[in-house]
Parts: sequence; C-alpha cells; structure tokens
Amino acid sequence: MTHSFDAALAELRDLLADGAVLVDPDVTERYRQDWAKDPNAGTPIAVVRARTTADVQSVMKWAGTHGVSVVPRGAGSGLSGGATAVDGGIVLTTELMRDITVDPVTRIAVVQPGLLNAEVKKAAAEHGLWYPPDPSSFEMCSIGGNAATNAGGLCCVKYGVTTDYVLGLEVVLADGTAVRLGGPRLKDVAGLSLTKLFIGSEGTLGIITEITVRLIPAQPPASTVVASFSSVRDATTAILAITRSLRPAMLEFMDRASIGAVEDAMNMGLDRDAHAMLIARSDSPGADRDREIEIMASACTAAGASDVFTTDDPEEGEAFAAARRFAIPAVERLGSLLLEDVGVPLPALPDLVEGIERISEKYDVLVAVIAHAGDGNTHPLIVFDPSDADMERRANLAFGAIMDLAISLGGTITGEHGVGRLKKAWLPDQVGEDVMKLTQRIKTALDPDGILNPGAVL
Amino acid sequence: MTHSFDAALAELRDLLADGAVLVDPDVTERYRQDWAKDPNAGTPIAVVRARTTADVQSVMKWAGTHGVSVVPRGAGSGLSGGATAVDGGIVLTTELMRDITVDPVTRIAVVQPGLLNAEVKKAAAEHGLWYPPDPSSFEMCSIGGNAATNAGGLCCVKYGVTTDYVLGLEVVLADGTAVRLGGPRLKDVAGLSLTKLFIGSEGTLGIITEITVRLIPAQPPASTVVASFSSVRDATTAILAITRSLRPAMLEFMDRASIGAVEDAMNMGLDRDAHAMLIARSDSPGADRDREIEIMASACTAAGASDVFTTDDPEEGEAFAAARRFAIPAVERLGSLLLEDVGVPLPALPDLVEGIERISEKYDVLVAVIAHAGDGNTHPLIVFDPSDADMERRANLAFGAIMDLAISLGGTITGEHGVGRLKKAWLPDQVGEDVMKLTQRIKTALDPDGILNPGAVL
Repeated sequence: MTHSFDAALAELRDLLADGAVLVDPDVTERYRQDWAKDPNAGTPIAVVRARTTADVQSVMKWAGTHGVSVVPRGAGSGLSGGATAVDGGIVLTTELMRDITVDPVTRIAVVQPGLLNAEVKKAAAEHGLWYPPDPSSFEMCSIGGNAATNAGGLCCVKYGVTTDYVLGLEVVLADGTAVRLGGPRLKDVAGLSLTKLFIGSEGTLGIITEITVRLIPAQPPASTVVASFSSVRDATTAILAITRSLRPAMLEFMDRASIGAVEDAMNMGLDRDAHAMLIARSDSPGADRDREIEIMASACTAAGASDVFTTDDPEEGEAFAAARRFAIPAVERLGSLLLEDVGVPLPALPDLVEGIERISEKYDVLVAVIAHAGDGNTHPLIVFDPSDADMERRANLAFGAIMDLAISLGGTITGEHGVGRLKKAWLPDQVGEDVMKLTQRIKTALDPDGILNPGAVL
Repeated sequence: MTHSFDAALAELRDLLADGAVLVDPDVTERYRQDWAKDPNAGTPIAVVRARTTADVQSVMKWAGTHGVSVVPRGAGSGLSGGATAVDGGIVLTTELMRDITVDPVTRIAVVQPGLLNAEVKKAAAEHGLWYPPDPSSFEMCSIGGNAATNAGGLCCVKYGVTTDYVLGLEVVLADGTAVRLGGPRLKDVAGLSLTKLFIGSEGTLGIITEITVRLIPAQPPASTVVASFSSVRDATTAILAITRSLRPAMLEFMDRASIGAVEDAMNMGLDRDAHAMLIARSDSPGADRDREIEIMASACTAAGASDVFTTDDPEEGEAFAAARRFAIPAVERLGSLLLEDVGVPLPALPDLVEGIERISEKYDVLVAVIAHAGDGNTHPLIVFDPSDADMERRANLAFGAIMDLAISLGGTITGEHGVGRLKKAWLPDQVGEDVMKLTQRIKTALDPDGILNPGAVL
C-alpha cells in the first residue's frame, strides 16, 4: 500500500454515507470472527456497512486501487470462518441492505443480501408462498450468506438447497463492475450458468448484492415421527429404509450426547437413555401423509426402535424440530466447539457415525453428533475446554480425523456450511490437485489481484 | 496447423481403437448438423467416436497439439446448432459411451454421456426409481447432451431441470485433463460449484464423460386436464390462475396451428377450431390429485374454456402428452422450421404469445406456438419454404423479432435448448456486455486456445 491506512480510509469515507466506515476497535472487534470463532482471525482496518449496490461498487474500486482485501460478511453466523477478518483488510457487511419485494404472480422475491432467512420466509408467507431452505440458524442467518455458502437445512432432504431456489443474482465483481445474472425466469439457459457459479463461492468471486429467489406454494401441514434407539446402528438402518421408500420432508438424527445437551437446556422430556433419536416428517397431502408416517414409523420399529411416537399436531412436531435446531447452542454450553459438516453417500452413513465414535474415543474428546440424516450430512460437534491446551490439541486432531474419515468414505468435508478458512487444508484431499488448479484458474480470471476474501476456500 | 490433415489424422488413429476415426464423406455428412440444421455448418475433417474417457483425453491432447477444434456431440438432437460442425475441425461423438450403473440405496445412477434420456429413465424404473427431466425428444436425446444444455422438458414445471438432478460429473478439459466434480453426495459445498458451471456450458468449457444423477421414487400416477379455448388470452389467464394456486406436474400449451398440425399427423380428435389447448397434470397422491385436477379444471372454465375434459386414466392422459410432444415433428411436415425457445416471467406470457401473433402477421410467415406454459417457456416454430428465398428471409427476420420481443419483456432467448450458434447474436442483447466479458474471462481461463466448440454461445 502506497498510502497510509488513514489516507486511504479518508478517501473511502468520502465515497460513502456518514457512518458507513467504522474504525472504533470496540466495534470492529465484533466483526473479526463469525460463529466459527476462528482463533487466527486478523484485525480489520475498518468495517464498512454498505447500503446500496453502488456502495459495494465504490468499496471494490477503492479496494482495488489501494490493494486492500475485502472480506464480505452477512449476518456473521457462518460456521467455517468464511467471514474471518484478515489483517490490513476491511470487512464489508451487507447487514443494512434489507429490502425485499415479493411478486406472487411470478412467484419470486427480489431480496437484498442482509435480510434474514426467516424474514424472507415471513414475507413470502404473507402471500401464501414459501421459501423452503431452512438452515437451523434461519432466525439469525442472512439470505446473502445463505447464497454465498449454498446453505442447506432440515427440509432440504425433500425440497433442495439454496442454489435450487436462486433464479438470479446481482453481483459486484472484484473490479467494481455490477453484473445481473439470471432473473425472474423459471427456465433460462442463455449463456454459462454464472448464477450457479456464484452460489456457494463464499465471497471469493464477487459480492452478492441482490438475489431473486423462487417461491413455491405454502408447505402443507406436516406430521412427525420421533423414534428412540438403543444403538446408533439401528437408527442408521431405519434411515436407509426410509430414504429407500419415500422422500421425507425432514429426517434428522441426534446422538446421545446431543439429546442430553438439549434436554439439559430445554427440559422437554427427551429420552436421555437413548443412543440415537430420529425426527422424521411427512408433509404429503391428505391421507398420503398418514401412509408415509406409517411407513416411517414401521421402518423405525423394524430397525429396533425402543420407542416410536407420532403426531399430526404441527406444533407438537415443531417442538421436536426446534429441539434438534437448538442442538448446537445446547452442546456449546458444554465447552468450546469445533463444528464439522461432513457428508457421505447415504449407505456410508453408519460407517461414518461409528467411525466418529472411534475418533472420539481415540482422542478422548466428546463428539456430539447431529445430522440431516436423509441427506447423509452430519454435524459432529467436538467439545473442548479452551483452557486445556492438550484437550484443544486433541480436539483439533479429531477435527482433521473426522474429515479424513469422510473423504475415505467417498464423502465431503462440507455439506452445507462451506469450506471457509477452517477446512481449506482438507479441500485438496477431497477434490484433488487437478480440481484445485481448475478452481484457481477461475479465481484468477475473476479476481486477478486476490482481494476478494483472501484465505477462504483457496 | 503445421502438419497436413492426413498426417495429423494418422496420429489420431494410432491413439484410438480401430474404426474410431471416420473420414468417409458419406459418414461425416451425417454429423455436420444437429436437428437445428444450421445452414452454415462446416465440413469436419473427421468424426471421432470415443468409447472411453481416456479416448476423449487423447483426442483433446491431440487437438491441442495440432490446433484442431473439437465439436462435442451427443445424439445430435440439439435444436440450436450447438453441435454444428466447423470447417477443419473434428466432431467428437460420445454416442458409443453408453454404460450405466444404478445404485438404489444411494438413489443415484452413474451414466456415460451417450445413453439416451429414455434409457436412463428405464434403468431407474427397474429399481422403482425415476429420473424426472423429460425433454420432448427424450426417446432420442442423450443424457450427455441433456447435461451440456441443461435440458428441460414437460415435468420440469414441478420437478426441475437437468441441473437439479446432476450431483457429479467427470469432465475432460481442453488440455486433456480429466476432472471429477461433485459425486454421490446429496449435499456437497466443498469448493466452487464447478459441476453446475459445466451443466449448460454447451461443450465450450469441457467434454462431459460421466454423469452422476440423483434419482427419486417413482412418479405417482397422474390425472390429466385437457381444456380448449376460443382465445389465446383466455388460455393464458387460466395458466396464471393455475400456477398461482398449485404446482402442476405438467402445464403445456398448444396454439391453433400446432393443434391442426398434430391432428393432421395423429388424427386423435383434437378440436381444430380451438385457438388454444392446455394439457395439465397432477400427480399428487390420493385425494389431493382430485383436488388439484378440480382446481385446474375450474380455472380453465372460469377463464372461458370452451371444453374441459379430465381423466384419471394414465394412458388416456399420456396420449395428450404424446400429442404435445409430437408437435415439432408434426409442424415440420408443413415446411422447414426455425425453432424458438423464448421464455418470459410468467405474467408476461400473454404479451409474449400475442406479440408472436403480430410478428407472424407482420412477416407473413406461419408461427405455430407450443409452450411449457407453467414455466413461461415457449417454442414458437417458424415455418418456411426453403425454396422461397423471400419467405426464408422473412422467417429469419421473424426469428430475430421474437427473441427481441422476449428480451423486451424481461425474458430469455432460450429456456432449455441452449444458445448454440443460431441464437448467439442475441445473447449480448439479453445479458449485456459486462456479462459477456465475464463469460469470456471464464472461457479463456478454461480453454485459452479456443478449441472447444468454437463459435457456439460466444
């Protein structure tokens, strides 16, 4: 940098509205990390709150001129360190960009990135419509972050993930150019699939400033099956039996440690003695819902469930889903967490879960496992005491061992959270050097100076 | 090229199995054009039939060394000239790469590109599973071509398009490197969304040599509504009423000219006096199917349908779907065709269809319109007599005018067929210069010498 930070920041202030550039250390401290709490987070020279696409363009042009790196940030609820601040860079937050327009005839919403997922759902619901993707953090994660990470959730086993609902994007490129990709057309194959390329690119290729999402008619009421198992293997047997015969609207797994942690926090009468619990849903219409619930309940019983409970009361069913969603904060009460997001082809799910148990024993750390079981996507939560250096070391070894295990089973290091900074060392092991080179070619073509979210993914 | 064609081809023959390199003009003539019958098709120096991924790698390395361009080709059923041969290049056909493995527990199929879409469906059905995307040409189009164009079809209004079902790809890059992208994981966000980038890239970024597709449980039986209208506007009113309230499993439109052409060919008793016909389906389970059929039938009646017929006999319903699928060959009996694939946001559908009528009158050419109406994706078929030079000129003017109209309505020049060579002049008008530059940057990064399908899309 040829200018001092101060001179450069003065230029930036002139480009933006008053109060957009924050440098107070007490403020910037809050933007250094996302929920992954990356211990290697840097200290940004400023946090910039964009209000418009033009703001984002100004920031990128300024950043290019001054060689300042830009870490884009939505709500900061990411779990992989994708929004970890870097020394000497800025954090560009889109949290104030919160407009939404719902068009119920075209069945789309045009949304700015700072709106929360739950707010998108609510705006759609006002028109009898539904935006399905539902990360567990849906009440606190932003739609922009969802798009940048291709976020998943609980209903995705039947309804698909974020990329399946994004029809169009506005993206600001590294050089400050704003491009519109796709749009409110349900089918559009004109040119390369650039919309899809930016979804899940974790801020490394551009900054998403507007999202056009597809909406569908409101979800029908759902019925719920809750089954307890005395062994994890029995639960995984039930999972495979269910996914082979139908498409559940939800199929979630909790192991003993996560059941206990949730019960400690919520006191709702979960079976602490169970080694595994499944929460499955059907939202099929009419009598078919009962048929699917019966098939799923029977599959659990046949697999050896110790208790099977069904309800067609949506509120009662939602209480179990809420318990599952609360698992991460509940387990976090036990200590610091390293959050995994490994996924495998469905038939390998039992081997993955059993392998995680062995890793937990080997490294002598608690690993609570929750999973979007119907997708083969698990969240092992490694618990450690940060004041115990040896335990922290063992936790980190377990963190790597679980990703190694997933890769060895033909799986992925991340099903829905993204690579961010915490998992990038394992990405080459999963995808191979040729794919890494291909990735780098695209990164270099779009961000030749490497100012967009440096250190994430690549 | 520093070598003569003959010497270079001799080298190529040495790399591949006997009979893989075809130079007989009677044979190569059949590979000069796809179904778009591009009048500007070149003459290839050879047609190469790959049998393995290694063959494709050998061809690309050879092509790079000799600076020979490569036009990839599936079944040759493309409608945009994406597989038009170029002078001095080769056509690389994957028609002999036809292996498939279905894994019913993981619910995927691993398919080579030459297998036909119908054959993928059949292999899945043997396990009680379903591969939904269903281009009208499903009995003659290849799954590789489907992936390369991100093909759509009739059930896509409810079930999505090709990209929604592709979990992984093997792709041979311009330099002959074979990369594996994605795989049999239902959720996987590790690294950039490269699988999605290659889907719909029309052979300009790489050659798809293997596809991992997601399968879902077999489609439930469907009921069908067929409605006739005395005006196109009434039919489009019904379309919007239907899509606002539910997700039909099919919602197809035929205008008077296409009804007449199909009736001429199939003699099945369609109402030749109708100005528009809708074919709608519900495959909801149980009593909900009757409810959806009733809603759709009522929407047609309320919009002024002159006749509304419903059936829960799958074979009877399929006869109407087959009639719709046969529309392109039926209209082709009236003359040579220029095939459009324009799409618009749903509320603009009436304006698009009425605008096409005006263009037909202005240029004095017959334009038969069929549409995947629930997606806003239409196929105006411009009919001309190739021996009438003035009519051919007017047909070409109408071809451009219809794309101009779609763009002016916020639409796309291609919903599912691809840009190919015939529509590329209009792509910049739709996406703008900045997106064209972005596209070129990616193309250059992946195919710096421009040997992959030159002249297509870009």
